[in-house]
Amino acid sequence: MQKETRKEEILRVAARLFKNKGYSAVTMRDLATEMGIKAASLYNHISSKQAILQEIVLAIAEDFTAGMHKIIEADSNSIKKLEQIIDLHVKIAIENTDGLAALNSDWMHLESKLDYYLKLRQDYENNYRTIIESGIANKEIKAVKPDVLMFSMLSTLRSLYLWIPKKGNVNPKELSASLAQILIKGINI
Amino acid sequence: MQKETRKEEILRVAARLFKNKGYSAVTMRDLATEMGIKAASLYNHISSKQAILQEIVLAIAEDFTAGMHKIIEADSNSIKKLEQIIDLHVKIAIENTDGLAALNSDWMHLESKLDYYLKLRQDYENNYRTIIESGIANKEIKAVKPDVLMFSMLSTLRSLYLWIPKKGNVNPKELSASLAQILIKGINI
Repeated sequence: MQKETRKEEILRVAARLFKNKGYSAVTMRDLATEMGIKAASLYNHISSKQAILQEIVLAIAEDFTAGMHKIIEADSNSIKKLEQIIDLHVKIAIENTDGLAALNSDWMHLESKLDYYLKLRQDYENNYRTIIESGIANKEIKAVKPDVLMFSMLSTLRSLYLWIPKKGNVNPKELSASLAQILIKGINI
Repeated sequence: MQKETRKEEILRVAARLFKNKGYSAVTMRDLATEMGIKAASLYNHISSKQAILQEIVLAIAEDFTAGMHKIIEADSNSIKKLEQIIDLHVKIAIENTDGLAALNSDWMHLESKLDYYLKLRQDYENNYRTIIESGIANKEIKAVKPDVLMFSMLSTLRSLYLWIPKKGNVNPKELSASLAQILIKGINI
């Protein structure tokens, strides 16, 4: 495993503080105290609390965007694409649980990057809906209401960061497989 | 339709204010202003802001508890019971969208009734899990992980209050049927 850089440590500790206290309540001084360094030395690595929030939120949003683009471009049917979307959410929720918590509670505190974040989110949902609609048109997915299906899957996938910490060590492959079973194949016998 | 009592009006307007500004930021004076009455006359109907939060949150929690008890006691199989749980969440989310929003963002501000609320919530989840486990034991539900299934369904059902307002007039029967299809029967062909 590569050694964490000081910048990465700042983002990791800040995400945990934002999650626990909320962005507005956290100061650069709190962050420095938590890291056991001087506040002034934080500024060698990052310019402001807002810049930290931007890096945390946009790194995640861009991970989702990049993952969605791979899925969209892959030569696979719509059910496979939905399974890959599940994998993507599970992977990010396990790797960056605190970052997702900070994103979910604090994205609205983004300043100059707010519109960019909202655009990435909107594009993501548009691509998601397109996969569902194509799947229905191609008779790979049952004729359900696309917006209800997207709402239902995304409610579950976007809540993973809340659920995963209660479960201890989670195996991503097992969790993805369970969710694919439940969200796609149905549960009745 | 029965005329709304003044007490009911207080709870309805307070739920909307709690949703928009958060419990902590709302004062009894704000509530009186919003209703176009004097603050003093609020106290003819309710003793405090905390009492209002209690009534809003506990009325919903008790609705879920009563609904779950009917479902548990009914002579129906586990799939039918899960469908009835979906109906219950859809009904409450449509009838009391603002109340659910206030519950979700402000339940932790309950004071003397916090333990009671948490007990109702825990009992609800225990009953939900029992339905799933019985269904798996009786071979009505596939052998999925009960906790992943409960997490998945509840993430969707507990998010309805966020989604419904964006959709304009929602027909409860249609929405319940769509969700039952998606959450229970699966979406792949």
